[in-house]
Order: sequence, then C-alpha cells, then structure tokens
Amino acid sequence: MRLAFLGPAGTYTEAAALEYAPDAELIPVRTFTAAAQAVEDGEADAAVCAIENALEGPVAETLAILVREDLTLQINAEIVLAIRHALVGAPGLDLTQVQVVYSHPQALAQCRRRLSELAPSARPVAALSTSAAIEAAANEPGTLAVGNRRAADLYSAYCYEEDISDLPNNQTRFIVLAAAEQQPTGDDKTSLVFTMAHDRPGSLVEVLQPFAQRSINMTKIESRPTGQQLGTYYFFADVQGHQQEPDVAEAIAEARPHTQWLHVLGSYPRWTGNDA
Amino acid sequence: MRLAFLGPAGTYTEAAALEYAPDAELIPVRTFTAAAQAVEDGEADAAVCAIENALEGPVAETLAILVREDLTLQINAEIVLAIRHALVGAPGLDLTQVQVVYSHPQALAQCRRRLSELAPSARPVAALSTSAAIEAAANEPGTLAVGNRRAADLYSAYCYEEDISDLPNNQTRFIVLAAAEQQPTGDDKTSLVFTMAHDRPGSLVEVLQPFAQRSINMTKIESRPTGQQLGTYYFFADVQGHQQEPDVAEAIAEARPHTQWLHVLGSYPRWTGNDA
Repeated sequence: MRLAFLGPAGTYTEAAALEYAPDAELIPVRTFTAAAQAVEDGEADAAVCAIENALEGPVAETLAILVREDLTLQINAEIVLAIRHALVGAPGLDLTQVQVVYSHPQALAQCRRRLSELAPSARPVAALSTSAAIEAAANEPGTLAVGNRRAADLYSAYCYEEDISDLPNNQTRFIVLAAAEQQPTGDDKTSLVFTMAHDRPGSLVEVLQPFAQRSINMTKIESRPTGQQLGTYYFFADVQGHQQEPDVAEAIAEARPHTQWLHVLGSYPRWTGNDA
Repeated sequence: MRLAFLGPAGTYTEAAALEYAPDAELIPVRTFTAAAQAVEDGEADAAVCAIENALEGPVAETLAILVREDLTLQINAEIVLAIRHALVGAPGLDLTQVQVVYSHPQALAQCRRRLSELAPSARPVAALSTSAAIEAAANEPGTLAVGNRRAADLYSAYCYEEDISDLPNNQTRFIVLAAAEQQPTGDDKTSLVFTMAHDRPGSLVEVLQPFAQRSINMTKIESRPTGQQLGTYYFFADVQGHQQEPDVAEAIAEARPHTQWLHVLGSYPRWTGNDA
C-alpha cells in the first residue's frame, strides 16, 4: 500500500501513517491537499490527513477537502495520536537569547504559553510542518523549533525540553482517505457533512431527529462557517454505525430532505487503539 | 456614554462603535479582552467586540470572553459592518519589491490571494489591529499594510488598491457588552452558550427541541471546540425573541436540563441597519 502523508519524515502525520499501516510505502507530500490529490491521481492508495486537534480545533485545510462537492474519496479509517511537542535546536543554545522558533502554526499555538517562558525573546515563525521546522532549526544556528522527538533524532537536533504543550490531553485525530468504501466491521462510525438553507439554521433539529429517534449515537457535531455569508455553515457529524446498516441508511435518507446538501464522507472502524 | 473599543483610531471596531453610538466618548484599548475588562472595572459603559467575520469565521478572543463562567456582562446590541480592505503604505513604493505587509491576522487571511498577486514578495506580519498596521507601515518605509480607508487618511498613507478581500460579501458582526440587561423592543434576538456532557453530543437534539416545538426560529447555531478534549464543544446559539418573552423563557428553561451548563448571553435588537 502506498500512503501519502504530510512530510517530510518525522511529522506527526508520518507517525499516524505508521500507526495505521506500519508496512506501507510512505510517500511524503507538502500539504494535506496534495496527499488527497495523490490518491485521486492514482499515485497513492490512501492519504493520511490531520482533521482535528484537541487544543486548536479543526484543521481547516482537511475540512476544505471534505466539503468539495466533487470529492470522490471516502474516509476509510481514523487514527487518534497523542501529541507530545518538544523544543529542539542545535546543541549549546542560550534559550533566553534565541530570536526565532519555527513550527507548524498549530504546534506554535499549542505551546504559546510554555514557549514564552522557555524562550521569552523568540518570535514564532511558521513552517509547513513540524518536521520542516526542525530541519530549519538544525540548519540555522541560533534558532529553535517545536516538533516531535523522532524528527529531532532524524535531524540530529538537541532536545531542550519535552512535553511543552500548554494543556495535557493533547491529541490529534487523523483520517485516511481512499477511493473505495470500507466494509463493515461491527464497530464503525459514519461521517457526514451537510449544509442548510442559510435562513433556516433552526431546521438543524429536523436533521438530527431521524438519528435520535433510532437511538443512533452522535459522537460529534460541529459547525464551520462556509466563508460565504454570515450565518452559513457546514455541519460535520459523526454517528455510530456503518452506512450499510439499515437504521443508519434510513436515518440518513430521512435527514437528507431537511438539508440543502448532504454528503456521506465514509464509514470506518471506530478508533480504539489509544483508549485509556 | 463611554465606549471601549479595539484601538487605535481607524480600526473597523471604531467604525462599528461610531455606527452604534455616534456621540459616545470613545475609549481605545489594545484588545477585546481589555475592552470587556474596562466595563467590568467601571471605566467604560459598554465595549464593542468583533464576534464573527463572514470569511474567517468566529473571533476566538471574543468567544473566550463569552464562555467565562464568571461573566457578568450582557450582550446589548449587535452591529453588522461591511468590511472593505485597502492596501496602503507610504507613497511611491514598487509593490513587487515590498518585503513586509502588516495587518491584523484575520485581515491578512481575508486578502491572502489578492496580496500574493499585488505584492508577491511581501511576507505577512501580524499587527494588533488594522489601524496599528497602517501606523507601522506609515512609519517604516518600504512596508505595506492592510486596513481601511479612514485609517489610511488618519496616518496620511497612500492607498494602492481598494477592496482587496478575496471574496465579496465580507462582513463582520460586532457585539456590544454592557452591565445591564437590554429591554425588549419587539424585534429582538437572544444569544445562548451551552456545553453538553462530552459523551453525549447526540443530546443536542434535546436542547434544540424546546425551541423548535415553539416555532422559535434559530438564526445561528455554531460549535467551537473547548480546547480540553477531542469532541467537547461550546455551542453558541441565537434565537429570535427576547428572554423576557414567555415562550423564549420557557424554551430556555426546558432546554437547560439537557445541557451541562447553559448561559444566556443577552437579548438585544436584531440588526437591520445594513439590510439589503
């Protein structure tokens, strides 16, 4: 299996890809969008994309892929990864003198407070990935980066401090996008996205009702502005069960007329790997 | 009336404040949080805070004020403002050579595509407000800023291009926070925020039901991750009507037991000023 992921080597997305398919051929790409494109172009069998982080919330780029009306890919799996950020750089730095700290904007945001204590003069500078940030810091003396231990080792960087997230329980959820539908396993989730007529947000209750009536548990419901007009949203919902199960299929069919547009993003096994 | 707003002079928040109360004594502060604090400390009678932009979505800082469990302020009004960004700087610049463009991060995000065409070499650099950005560009030769025409005039900057937002219909909604409850006007909205037990997002339908049953129109429903744990959200809802109206009061009372925590943020006149 060829698995496209946000590279280079050492990103959290690579860690998620290895968790999902340890023996896959890993294909590093520069963005989540490029990872999905690689599958659509037949250059990869599946793409691993971060979808939400416990501290920072949804990953805008991945949601933008999922709301594409011409999307042909399906969510085939989810992976939940504990995120442990480290502060790394070339050895021998005086942290109080460092002027620049590189990382992916979400990683920088997740460590804002601790960074201001550890390296008070450092200005946060965005990198395309945590791994690219560590590579930059390793090549540019006097700078730091936020990323994971594995990447620090890959680039022979020194780890000044481990676990610098501002809050505990920092987890990221990743999804795997592929061309084919995943078959039922008996413990599945189904992801949906829908919109509603912009003057009828109140009709959300009518969309949720068919699931509630059938006691189909909703594990997530989240809105996101469409970026078109104030008060217009995409709603992302995850429900328990597979879209091939009759009650889930019926609930979706009954909900659809109450939406403006509804797309089933895929059914896939519920992640149980990291359960406490 | 003393009105605290995100200063300095020339910000969009100042424009919203002037739209709300043309004769108010305007008190510029550095953040929305400081504006709310000024009211809590009795240094201002009301605070104007941006709450959502059509392109960029919710304003995180203002939502963080509204979810404070010890919040004593009430939303007293809403203002919807058309946002027209301009690209400004000292006169005589060769835009292709400019290396830095300052603005508030949301303004930079709203003009990303046009900026990359107009000033392809310019790196976006965050400022505390669009107005502070224009002041910076006016004082630092060779740099640009994104902000509004009024601020450009205030700082004697030159306007290189008007209306550089990536999408039309760019509007921002502002709220006015004050200590006292607003009285009913006959055409009001009520804003609520609530959370649900993290393992029961499906119960959202039970929270919405009491409003739907009474045909109380919901003009907004939006979720926002709490930043505590994957899958836990604050829900922000706006419903038509005033909290003193019996049906609205009943619906809130009936919805409350289905939430973990519910707070009425205020009732205030529906904005009709900019209606097309």
